[in-house]
Amino acid sequence: MTARFGFDVVARDEAARCGRLQLAHGDVDTPAFMPVGTRGAVRGVTADELESIGTQIVLANTYHLHLRPSAELVARRGGLHAFMGWTRPILTDSGGYQVFSLAERRTLGEDGVVFHSHLDGSRHLLTPERAVDIQARLGSDVAMMLDECPSWPATPAELDAAVERTLRWARRGRDRFLALAAGGDPDVARPTPGQAQFGIVQGGTDKARRDRSVAGTLAVGFEAYAIGGLSVGEPVEAMYEITGHTAAQLPADRPRYLMGTGMPDDLVESVARGIDLFDCVLPTRNARNGQLFTPRGPISIKNARYAEDDRPIDPGCRCPTCKRYSRAYLRYLFVAGEMNAATLNTLHNLHFYLDTMRQIREAIKFGTFAKFRKAFLETYSRQPRSLDD
Amino acid sequence: MTARFGFDVVARDEAARCGRLQLAHGDVDTPAFMPVGTRGAVRGVTADELESIGTQIVLANTYHLHLRPSAELVARRGGLHAFMGWTRPILTDSGGYQVFSLAERRTLGEDGVVFHSHLDGSRHLLTPERAVDIQARLGSDVAMMLDECPSWPATPAELDAAVERTLRWARRGRDRFLALAAGGDPDVARPTPGQAQFGIVQGGTDKARRDRSVAGTLAVGFEAYAIGGLSVGEPVEAMYEITGHTAAQLPADRPRYLMGTGMPDDLVESVARGIDLFDCVLPTRNARNGQLFTPRGPISIKNARYAEDDRPIDPGCRCPTCKRYSRAYLRYLFVAGEMNAATLNTLHNLHFYLDTMRQIREAIKFGTFAKFRKAFLETYSRQPRSLDD
Repeated sequence: MTARFGFDVVARDEAARCGRLQLAHGDVDTPAFMPVGTRGAVRGVTADELESIGTQIVLANTYHLHLRPSAELVARRGGLHAFMGWTRPILTDSGGYQVFSLAERRTLGEDGVVFHSHLDGSRHLLTPERAVDIQARLGSDVAMMLDECPSWPATPAELDAAVERTLRWARRGRDRFLALAAGGDPDVARPTPGQAQFGIVQGGTDKARRDRSVAGTLAVGFEAYAIGGLSVGEPVEAMYEITGHTAAQLPADRPRYLMGTGMPDDLVESVARGIDLFDCVLPTRNARNGQLFTPRGPISIKNARYAEDDRPIDPGCRCPTCKRYSRAYLRYLFVAGEMNAATLNTLHNLHFYLDTMRQIREAIKFGTFAKFRKAFLETYSRQPRSLDD
Repeated sequence: MTARFGFDVVARDEAARCGRLQLAHGDVDTPAFMPVGTRGAVRGVTADELESIGTQIVLANTYHLHLRPSAELVARRGGLHAFMGWTRPILTDSGGYQVFSLAERRTLGEDGVVFHSHLDGSRHLLTPERAVDIQARLGSDVAMMLDECPSWPATPAELDAAVERTLRWARRGRDRFLALAAGGDPDVARPTPGQAQFGIVQGGTDKARRDRSVAGTLAVGFEAYAIGGLSVGEPVEAMYEITGHTAAQLPADRPRYLMGTGMPDDLVESVARGIDLFDCVLPTRNARNGQLFTPRGPISIKNARYAEDDRPIDPGCRCPTCKRYSRAYLRYLFVAGEMNAATLNTLHNLHFYLDTMRQIREAIKFGTFAKFRKAFLETYSRQPRSLDD
């Protein structure tokens, strides 16, 4: 296990960058997509399968793991990597976003947020310091600071409050992170000594507030920086605009992480604006709902038109699902409610996302990203479509 | 695809035999255990995973596939192998057993059995001839004749009626099978020209009725023979006694299939009595319920004692689950309701069954089966136990 955080940009094509991120448990080629393993498992696929499709890093959710089995239990197992049987890098979110979206009741204050578990109603307090401690115990390669992500649309006053509180929490979270890294608390196990911490920029779709948030977050200083508060319902044009505006102000020698995004075309558009890291539940969640991604757009495998279609989902795809199974079989498994449908659909969708990132990296290296982007967007349609078109 | 059915006994150790079964889609080393893929999928594991643990043949259920997606649809796909993406042998049951155990209402007559689908209540008639036609369309390597399996306990009159009706159905089913093999019905697609048909012996736990059933079934003549009507609730000693008694009368140059059995110690005891083929839902169904098999007996992974146990299920096991995951993680996944628990538990249990068969074959080849059997039975306990004992 290396203990140093590093990031080398190996190629550029206008604002797009191709890089190599060095984390405690290994390297990640960027731009990279992180499959989401909410509860310490990417639902429906095994670690062997994740490796077989080239997954270099996964995201795990702090909120869920904190409530069950608890960060303390995970720490006693030697950290999340040992617990999950996953030896490659892991990024953990701070838990804040899910407190706001999942907890039964929550009360936000300056100190932090009091919430009641969606599992058993038990009361918990999440503060910037505790978010650090929990993720230290989980031992992820990258810990995210606790931020306040306002819902969309937010009033200017709400946006301002969130930006300012997030900056105060950034300072507190970073102080706690540095204190732990210096060995300051024997009660907090740190199974991954080389853990890095990323700051998060807020500010909604307002450029001035984004600028203020960037400046304040950079002043605190983190290993790298994320753009939060997007993909929360704003128009896609606003998301692209703010992503580009914000990414341009973040340090060029650090990876830039756009949180919670997105659709395949969002990935391409965001890379074009300087983003290096992504996570999103879409490929996994939609797979379980029968939506499969193809270069031409998503399709719904439950559609009766596939009942007797012997072709793979995408004849050009090299994923384990397309190599072996027909649309007819996948449609049948889905309609019959067989759990294997979730597995095979998830493998395909994750492969599609990871392969799209691979193609993006290749295009950047060859200086053909603009051409790739144009071709991708001309072919890809967000609207669910039929493969018979 | 070879078109010939064959069976070579390569080693014997008293009544136990080690053989090689040649089927249309490949060879099977016997004694063999067939994982059950009820609806055309072994629940929770992919075909790649089944191959990785050495699965040579799977069982699929005719009743389920007939109702959905229908044998006709499967035939249009080129048969069950093409449909499932499984290139190795498949055995299909006749559908009769599940008509009796699953259908909503059923009426047994001399012609066959009228039943109502558990899916939509639709009315169907299953006859010995139709069971042949459905399995011909599915294109399994081995088709089973339609039999009548009485519930246990049955009266002597019920047993007699089932034995006699099963013999009449054997004749009708075999005639239909031979007519189809001779190309007699252009309306029935036969995607697997080399399909074999197995007869089924009934007779409950009564030796005289078993003898009668064996004689009559042999007189009809099938590629091989199965023992039905056991593992239906009778005492285990009676099952062993009738298995040994019946197997001894079945042709030595044909594989003998004990249907629906059983616990790991049942496999060892039945091999000792001359059985070559097994199927059972126990390893897969129990995996989904959190029961895991080990050489010392089954354990319940949901037990709180495993919450902080970092060891694999069985330190001596080489399955994909034990190579990578701890009891603590498997317990957590099960308690959290993650579907990955079903996958990892199923892989372990199927590997345990297949590896037990592999050890049995090795012991027979080395002439040490008696020693293996004694050691296995001394170590293995049917009672769920703790691994801390």
